[in-house]
Amino acid sequence: MSETFDLKETLLEALKTKNAKKVREIFDIIPNIDIAEALEDCEDVTLLVYIFRVVSKDYTGDFFAELSSEQQERIINAFTDKDLITLLDNSFADDIVDTIEEMPANVANRILRVAPTDLRKDINQLLNYKDNTAGSVMTTEFIEMRDTTTVKEALQTIREKGRDAETVYTIFVKDAKRTLVGTIDLDDLIFAKDEEQLKDIMNLDFVTCNVNEDQEEVANLFKRYDLNAMAVVNNENKIIGIITVDDVMDILVEEANEDIAKLNKVSNMDEPYLKTPIHKLVKKCVPWILALMILQIGTAAITSGFDHLIASFAVLAVFSPLILDAGGNSGGQTTTMIVRSLALDEFEKGDFKRVIWKELRVALIIAVIIGIFATAWTFFEMSVLHIGEIDASKITINKTLAQFFVALLVGSTLMVTIIISRMIGCVLPFIAKIIKIDPAVMCGPFTTTIVDIVSLLTYFLLWSEVFKGLIGLTA
Amino acid sequence: MSETFDLKETLLEALKTKNAKKVREIFDIIPNIDIAEALEDCEDVTLLVYIFRVVSKDYTGDFFAELSSEQQERIINAFTDKDLITLLDNSFADDIVDTIEEMPANVANRILRVAPTDLRKDINQLLNYKDNTAGSVMTTEFIEMRDTTTVKEALQTIREKGRDAETVYTIFVKDAKRTLVGTIDLDDLIFAKDEEQLKDIMNLDFVTCNVNEDQEEVANLFKRYDLNAMAVVNNENKIIGIITVDDVMDILVEEANEDIAKLNKVSNMDEPYLKTPIHKLVKKCVPWILALMILQIGTAAITSGFDHLIASFAVLAVFSPLILDAGGNSGGQTTTMIVRSLALDEFEKGDFKRVIWKELRVALIIAVIIGIFATAWTFFEMSVLHIGEIDASKITINKTLAQFFVALLVGSTLMVTIIISRMIGCVLPFIAKIIKIDPAVMCGPFTTTIVDIVSLLTYFLLWSEVFKGLIGLTA
Repeated sequence: MSETFDLKETLLEALKTKNAKKVREIFDIIPNIDIAEALEDCEDVTLLVYIFRVVSKDYTGDFFAELSSEQQERIINAFTDKDLITLLDNSFADDIVDTIEEMPANVANRILRVAPTDLRKDINQLLNYKDNTAGSVMTTEFIEMRDTTTVKEALQTIREKGRDAETVYTIFVKDAKRTLVGTIDLDDLIFAKDEEQLKDIMNLDFVTCNVNEDQEEVANLFKRYDLNAMAVVNNENKIIGIITVDDVMDILVEEANEDIAKLNKVSNMDEPYLKTPIHKLVKKCVPWILALMILQIGTAAITSGFDHLIASFAVLAVFSPLILDAGGNSGGQTTTMIVRSLALDEFEKGDFKRVIWKELRVALIIAVIIGIFATAWTFFEMSVLHIGEIDASKITINKTLAQFFVALLVGSTLMVTIIISRMIGCVLPFIAKIIKIDPAVMCGPFTTTIVDIVSLLTYFLLWSEVFKGLIGLTA
Repeated sequence: MSETFDLKETLLEALKTKNAKKVREIFDIIPNIDIAEALEDCEDVTLLVYIFRVVSKDYTGDFFAELSSEQQERIINAFTDKDLITLLDNSFADDIVDTIEEMPANVANRILRVAPTDLRKDINQLLNYKDNTAGSVMTTEFIEMRDTTTVKEALQTIREKGRDAETVYTIFVKDAKRTLVGTIDLDDLIFAKDEEQLKDIMNLDFVTCNVNEDQEEVANLFKRYDLNAMAVVNNENKIIGIITVDDVMDILVEEANEDIAKLNKVSNMDEPYLKTPIHKLVKKCVPWILALMILQIGTAAITSGFDHLIASFAVLAVFSPLILDAGGNSGGQTTTMIVRSLALDEFEKGDFKRVIWKELRVALIIAVIIGIFATAWTFFEMSVLHIGEIDASKITINKTLAQFFVALLVGSTLMVTIIISRMIGCVLPFIAKIIKIDPAVMCGPFTTTIVDIVSLLTYFLLWSEVFKGLIGLTA
């Protein structure tokens, strides 16, 4: 961390004194993202523009992509058209699209206006893909070759055109009809003999995705098949772009963060906490609490319907939070496991029944363990710690026996609650998936609410129908 | 999915009829992991061993690594020592270590016994690194060269030795003292002139990690710097291994899953749901619920201490679940955001104060919004829906006014609760990090419990000290 401060000072010093040699040296030894972060607060745009004048074109495109959109906008506004064209030349189409999406309309239009025709076409195409699809994350700069190309020719082409491609580690091979027929890893080219043809050495076991595929599915494929790059094809199986592993790392984290957030009743955490404006943080949190509050009307209605029971025997209120919490947590555990398994594509068709059957057995075992423990623990709380006092004058049986019955009420309610809540927590994510709602969004609030209602109903009914009589309440 | 079934049939058919050509063809066009999954249930080990006799050595090492440990053990037991040596020759050291870690002692010892001396040394070294460190995920098969090597020599070396390396896309450059001084991407070698020396074209802005670094930190570095491979160095800055991006994708998902699980009170989800045995699922869930149940003694004690208030005014019990839930959810929201930001290394030293200050402002805004809404909503529930009836004979003021005061009690309790719970949810993860407990493990149960206690205390105290008098309860 202390490095960052030194870097910032050294860098600003070099820029202010127009020490081109020093600036170039810094770009040689420090990763672009670290430099971009160090200049995040730099308000003197001439210093930033100076970088693009003196630093090697090998760095500037990537460096620009790492800057915040505020800095990018500032720089573009300070650029001449010629500067801008040079920058676009040294940038990848997907990075340019990311930039354009954050710019005000006039800046975005200027970028499109100065972009060379080919690039403009690519950009426009990429801008049209829906968010979170393969199309929206792919880039159009890749190397494709005919299957009849020789290894020698292929290496020659890579030397000539490779600099403009997002990756040269995977080369895509097409047949005469421009259909993708194989892929070649750069190392296989290096290992092969000069005169061999690509079709003889290419991999046939390659994996592709459709341009409309969800980015989460794409990321799962990368992870499953340990890919460096994947071809994105259209409905005619022609390659129209590629996705590279560096983008996939971001997607994996983004998608996991989404699940984490929603399961914990926060909206998308797509920006670092400290960089998210306060009003956005409020917006991420408030709707969930409001929704839960409204849904909680069920719990309130049930408690209200049984309030005479509580008035006559306040001990019930002492242990109701325990029952609500244990039920909610138990259902939440199942939901969490199922939602993640769905996200990671672990289930195949027909697995639903296997999941239910497995969860039922798990639920039964947990219910028995927790039921017994809860009975013992509640009895201990009541008899030893005197939490939840019973007024001996109100009951017809021995006080210790009454305490045991209350403990048994808590334990047996939990047994029922855990089984039901785990079944709900297990079924809900599948239902969400079928009706095409994000399982994490739906299950967070709904599991809690439904389980709360079931728990309280069980608790009050078991009390009024069974235990109240056993204890012989007189009031 | 239907493909998988066809694949399984076709494959078993080819294996049973000893159709070597067909088997080879399948391996050419189908990724190894799909074949490994299709053979998961195959109990005839001779069919599996047959694969290793006929299929190209380019596939067998990777195919073996993709099999389950049960199948691996079965195959090793059926292998002659010679078969086993061939397999080890075609496998990467990190994959072998993964296998050994799952094998019973006698099988593990046999692998170590037949392994060539060099490989055995590597394996033993890798086996010694602590779980979840860079050392435990790195591999020892990488290409390193002197900085004075020419491009031509380098490419020659890659052609000769590249097949044994985990990656040839990144070459590690050392000086005369064997210190790592740079890295070269394979494409830069291809683009360079034959006679150039590595030191003239190598990247100086490379990133390394120490062998004892946590794997999560390593994964964050890969993501930040878009790396394909990273050198792992010892305390003398000598390179002792490398980590490649394919392993990092698994780490990213694993670490995110850990956070998701623990924040939702489940232990590590390290295996797919359907593959986890029932007793393990029980073990993942039960301890958390038990712990929460024990911690909940605080809530029970407080409710018990105020049970005379509930007995005299049961409406309090109707809205206590709402207060407990909203408080818990609100604190959980903050905890979730902070825990993830800590995991993704978003904070620098000194950011703690900025986080607290930001969260305080967020909490104030949310508290006001929720407080106002909760008051209105509770009043609506009571006056229109008749949830939480007040016995008019027990109070000295107008019933509607009394309902408004109860609603105001709920709203103001929530305001206090939300501010306190968000502050707790924000501070706890930092405390956990300082005392070196996994923030996600500690914060899940503790946030819930502390917030529950604070919420109930606020609720009952506000009632007995302020609102009870306002309503003029007579009972």
